[in-house]
Amino acid sequence: MSVFRIFCVWFYINMMLLQISPCVGDSNTVNPCCNYPCQNAGVCVRFGSDGYQCDCTRTGHTGKNCTVPEFWTRVYLLLPHVVHYILTNFQWFWNIVNNSFLQDTIMRIVLTVRSDLIPSPPTYNTKYGYLSWESYYNITYYTRLLPPVPEDCPLPMGSKGTPVLPDPKVLTQRFFKRIKFRPDPQGTNLMFAFMAQHFTHQFFKTDHGRDAGFTKGLGHGVDASNIYGDTLERQHELRLHEDGKLKYQLVNGDVYPPSVSKVPVHMIYPEGFPAEQRLAIGQEVFGILPGLTMYATLWLREHNRICDILKAEHPTWDDEQLFQTTRLIIIGEIINIIIEEYVQQLSGYHLDLKFDPSLLFNARFQYSNRIALEFCHLYHWHPLMPDSFLIDGDEIPYPSFFYNTSLLMHYGVEKLVDAFSRQPAGQIGGGRNSNEVVLRVAEMVIRESRAARIQPFNQYRKRFNLKPYCSFDEFTDDPEMAQGLEELYGDIDALEFYPGVLLEKTRSNAIFGESMVEMGAPFSLKGLMGNPICSPEYWKPSTFGGDTGFNIVKTATIKKLVCLNSRWCPYVNFHIPRNEEEAKPRKPSTEL
Amino acid sequence: MSVFRIFCVWFYINMMLLQISPCVGDSNTVNPCCNYPCQNAGVCVRFGSDGYQCDCTRTGHTGKNCTVPEFWTRVYLLLPHVVHYILTNFQWFWNIVNNSFLQDTIMRIVLTVRSDLIPSPPTYNTKYGYLSWESYYNITYYTRLLPPVPEDCPLPMGSKGTPVLPDPKVLTQRFFKRIKFRPDPQGTNLMFAFMAQHFTHQFFKTDHGRDAGFTKGLGHGVDASNIYGDTLERQHELRLHEDGKLKYQLVNGDVYPPSVSKVPVHMIYPEGFPAEQRLAIGQEVFGILPGLTMYATLWLREHNRICDILKAEHPTWDDEQLFQTTRLIIIGEIINIIIEEYVQQLSGYHLDLKFDPSLLFNARFQYSNRIALEFCHLYHWHPLMPDSFLIDGDEIPYPSFFYNTSLLMHYGVEKLVDAFSRQPAGQIGGGRNSNEVVLRVAEMVIRESRAARIQPFNQYRKRFNLKPYCSFDEFTDDPEMAQGLEELYGDIDALEFYPGVLLEKTRSNAIFGESMVEMGAPFSLKGLMGNPICSPEYWKPSTFGGDTGFNIVKTATIKKLVCLNSRWCPYVNFHIPRNEEEAKPRKPSTEL
Repeated sequence: MSVFRIFCVWFYINMMLLQISPCVGDSNTVNPCCNYPCQNAGVCVRFGSDGYQCDCTRTGHTGKNCTVPEFWTRVYLLLPHVVHYILTNFQWFWNIVNNSFLQDTIMRIVLTVRSDLIPSPPTYNTKYGYLSWESYYNITYYTRLLPPVPEDCPLPMGSKGTPVLPDPKVLTQRFFKRIKFRPDPQGTNLMFAFMAQHFTHQFFKTDHGRDAGFTKGLGHGVDASNIYGDTLERQHELRLHEDGKLKYQLVNGDVYPPSVSKVPVHMIYPEGFPAEQRLAIGQEVFGILPGLTMYATLWLREHNRICDILKAEHPTWDDEQLFQTTRLIIIGEIINIIIEEYVQQLSGYHLDLKFDPSLLFNARFQYSNRIALEFCHLYHWHPLMPDSFLIDGDEIPYPSFFYNTSLLMHYGVEKLVDAFSRQPAGQIGGGRNSNEVVLRVAEMVIRESRAARIQPFNQYRKRFNLKPYCSFDEFTDDPEMAQGLEELYGDIDALEFYPGVLLEKTRSNAIFGESMVEMGAPFSLKGLMGNPICSPEYWKPSTFGGDTGFNIVKTATIKKLVCLNSRWCPYVNFHIPRNEEEAKPRKPSTEL
Repeated sequence: MSVFRIFCVWFYINMMLLQISPCVGDSNTVNPCCNYPCQNAGVCVRFGSDGYQCDCTRTGHTGKNCTVPEFWTRVYLLLPHVVHYILTNFQWFWNIVNNSFLQDTIMRIVLTVRSDLIPSPPTYNTKYGYLSWESYYNITYYTRLLPPVPEDCPLPMGSKGTPVLPDPKVLTQRFFKRIKFRPDPQGTNLMFAFMAQHFTHQFFKTDHGRDAGFTKGLGHGVDASNIYGDTLERQHELRLHEDGKLKYQLVNGDVYPPSVSKVPVHMIYPEGFPAEQRLAIGQEVFGILPGLTMYATLWLREHNRICDILKAEHPTWDDEQLFQTTRLIIIGEIINIIIEEYVQQLSGYHLDLKFDPSLLFNARFQYSNRIALEFCHLYHWHPLMPDSFLIDGDEIPYPSFFYNTSLLMHYGVEKLVDAFSRQPAGQIGGGRNSNEVVLRVAEMVIRESRAARIQPFNQYRKRFNLKPYCSFDEFTDDPEMAQGLEELYGDIDALEFYPGVLLEKTRSNAIFGESMVEMGAPFSLKGLMGNPICSPEYWKPSTFGGDTGFNIVKTATIKKLVCLNSRWCPYVNFHIPRNEEEAKPRKPSTEL
C-alpha cells in the first residue's frame, strides 16, 4: 500500500468525521462545502441537504474529491519549487541562457505556467460563490479566485479554527508592527516602492462606498487611468485639447501637474488645503505622497514629449488621435518597465525577464483581465515604507511628507529620484516590519477580508499548487509568532489569507515568502500580458503611430522615463546602488 | 512576367495617379488613405501631409501596400470557395463524415477559420478609425471591422463613385420592394424568422438616442437579456424572487408573460394601449409581433421548468442561485439550438454542425465578443417576412398582427408554432423581396450606414478574402438592377455595404449570396463560441448545477423547447415540412 493510498484512506476518514460532526447553531445540516472537500481546484456543489459533488473537470484529477492525480499531473506538480530554485541560482547558467534563444523559450514557459493559474474569463466574486452571468458581466465587482466561505458554515473560516477570529488590532500590533527597520535583502528601494503604489492604484480602486468587494477601477488592468483619470469627464478636464497634450503648469521653468484651481477635478487632500497647492492628477489619491506626485509629473512630461514626437511625424492628426495614440504608447511603456525592471527586481530571477508579447501568440491565452480581490489584498506592501525619508541630506519625517506638494517643486524631480533610488525599502515578508503610521492599513485589509469571507490561507496555498502548511511552526521561523498565531487562530487551516502572505517566513535573502511570489506573480503577469495592446491584433507599429512609437514602447526603461524628462540624469533604478559606479553621487552638472 | 506582376505594376501606377489627382474641396492634400491603398487587412496610417504607410504585420503579405502574399497565404486564399462548394455538395461524402471523428475535425476548422476573421480584442468604432484605449474600453460603442471612411475624403465613399449618394428611398423602392413573394429555396420558415428576430435582439440594440454606432446591449453577445432584461432593475422586476423563477400570468391554465399592469417595466406599445394587455418581457420591443411574444412565452416556461428541476436536486439553494444557474443553462440551450439547428438551416451545409465548445480548447481563441456595426447592419433580414400570416386556417394581415397580444393567447403557443413552422419565409438575398411594411427599415439602415461612414461593399469583400466585384453585372444577374445601381453609384467600388449584401446575386437555390454567408458566419460563430460558458473555465457540469443541467444544455433542441412547454407537440422546425411525415397535421389529441 503506497503512501499515497494511506493518505487517501486517512483523508476519507477525516472527511467522514467532519460530515458527521454535530452541527453548530440551528437545526440545519452543515453545508458539506464548509469542509472544502474538493481538492486541486475542484468545484464543490451542494446536492440534497447534506450531500455534495466535486466537479473535477480539467483539474487533472479524478475521484470523489478530485484527489487522484492523472499521470502527467504528478510530474507537473513537482515543477514550481524546482523551477524557482533554478531560476534564483546558477548565475553562470543564466548568463548563457540570457544570451540565447532559450531566454524566449523559458520566458514563454514562465508566462504560460503562471497565467494558467488565473481563470479567464473570471469566475466568482464576493456575492457569487458559483458561476453566474452577473459575476461575469458586472465589472464593478473584483473577481475572486476562490469562492467566499459559505454563509452557513459552523465557523468563521469554514469548519476549523476558533469560533471568533482574533482582533485585527491585536494581530497588527503583535505581528505586523515594526520593531527595527529591516531593509529588503534584495536591495529594493523607495523608487520601487512608489512605483508599486503609483502603478497599482490604476487598478486597485476599492469602492469603499459599497459593500466589500467592489472596485471603481473598471479598466481591470493597465489602463493608465492613474494618469488620465477613470472617467471621460476627468480625462477631458486633464487634457489641453491641443496636440494631444495634458494640461500642466510651469514652476521655475519645469513642467508639473496643474493646480486644482486651474483644473477643477476632485483630489483628496486634507480639509482646507488650498486649491492652488492641490495638484490635478488622474488618480484622486495621489496628492498624499510626494513620491506619487513625482511619478505623476514624470508620466505627464513623458506624455507630452511623445505627443511632440507623434505630431512631427503626423502633422495632419488631430488632438484626439495624438492623445489616444500617445496613451497606448504610455501603456506599453508602463508594461515594459514593470516586467523588465520592476518584476525583475522583485523576482530575484537570474533569467532576464523580457517584455515580448509575441511570445504568447501561439499559446492559448486570453487577452482580458479582471482584477481579483485576493490580488488587491496581497499587494498591500506597506512594510516597504521606511521610518523617514532622506532627501538631499535632509531627513523628512512622515508628518512633513504626507500631502506635501511643495517638496516636489522644492527639490525637483531629479533630486527626488536620486534620493528614492538610494534609500532602501523595508522587507515586505516575515512580519514585524510595518511602520506605525501604516499599520491601520493592514488592519483595514484584515477587516475587509472578513466582510468578504475570504477563504483560509491554506486553501489558497492549495489553489496555487503549494503544499498547505501543517503547523504554525512550519509557517514561520519566529517561535513567538507561531505560538501567538496558534493561540489566536486555533488551527493552521484557519489562518487568514492576508496574515498568511505577509507573515510567512521569507525565502532566504528574499523580500518575501514563497506564497507571495507564487500567488502574486500569476495575477501580475496575467494582468500585464492580458492587456489588449499585447494581443496579435494590437501589437504592431500602426497601433503606436508607426515604428517610432513602437520602438519607444519596446525600449522603454525607468532611466529613460526619468532622464528624457529632467534637467540632469540622477541615479535611477529599482534597487539601491550595487557597485561603486552606481553609488557615485550624480550632480546637476551632468546636464542632458 | 507573371500576371501577378503585371497586376502589381498596374496597381502602383493606379495608386500614383490617385495620389497626384487634384484635390477636391479646399487647399489640403487628399488623405491618401481615402484610396484604401492597403490591401489584405493592412492598416493605413497617414504620415506627413500626403504620405501613408501600410502596416502589414501578420496579414500574411508584405510590400508597400501589403499586396505581396507570403507562400502559405497563396494556398490559404484558395480555400473559402472550394470549401463552401464541398460543404454544400457530395451528400454521400458527408454521410460518412458526420458519423466519424472527421465531423469534429472539420467542425473545428470551420470554427477557427471563421472566427479568425474577427479581430479580438475588438478594434475600431464609429468615432475611432484607429486603435485606441477608448474604443477598447467603451462598450457602449458597436465595434467596427473596418474603420470609417476618413472624414476628409473627396467623395462620400472615399475616392470613387458619385459625389452624392443615391436617395435611400429610391434605392429601396427600386431594388428592395417585393413584387411577388419569393419563398426561400432552402425552405426556411417563419419559426426561423421569428427566432432570428428574437435571438438577435438580445445583442442588436442600437441606441437611437445617440449618434450612429452606439448600442444599449452591453452584453455584446448571447446574454439572454431578451429574456431577463438588460438592467439589473428590469431583471428584478421580472423575477418572482421565489425558487429562481420569473413572474408569469395564467390564462386558461397556461403560463404567459405577466402584464405590465402587474410588472411595471417599460414596453414599447402604441400610445393608449391598455397596460393589462401589454406583456412584460426582457426586451422592450417584443410586444410588436406575436412571433416574438410566442418565443418570450416559451423561454419563460423553459426557465421556470429548469428552476423546478434544479430545486429538486438542490433543495438548499436560494432563489438567487436557482435563478443564476438557470440563466446559464438557458444561455447554453440558446447557443446549442442556434448552432445545431438555426445556423444549420441557414448554411445549407451537409456537414452536421455540432455545438461542442471543447473543440476549441486547444485552439487560440478569445472568449469575449464585441458586436460589430457591420454585423448589425447585414442582419436586417426583413425579406424573410411574408405578405400575411396563416394561422390555423386564418389569414392575418399585418395591421391585425402588429402589437396583437391576444392572438398568442387566442391560438396558444402550440398552434402558432405549428403555423409558423409550416409557413415559408421569403428569400433574403437577390433583392425585390421586401414587403412594403418593412421597407422603411432598409431605408433606415442605409441612412445610418452613411452617418456612420461605413466603407464600400468591395472593401468588405476584400476584408473577408473575397474577390471584389469588377462590375455591377458581375454583382447581380438582374440586368435592370445592374444598370440602375451603376447609374446611381457610378462605380462598383462605391456600392454601399448594406445594398451590397442584400442585393448581391444569390447562390443557386440558396437563401442569400456569397457575401452574406462569408461575412455573417464569422461574426455569428465568434459571438456564439466566444461566450464565457464555452470557455474551459465554464464548460463543466458544476456551472450548470451538475450533470442534469449540463445535459439539458448539451441536448437542447427547438423541439424540446416547444414540446416540453406545451400541451401537445406541434410540427416544429426551422424549415417547412420536407417529407410526408413532417407534413402530416398535428392535433391537440397528441397530448404530451
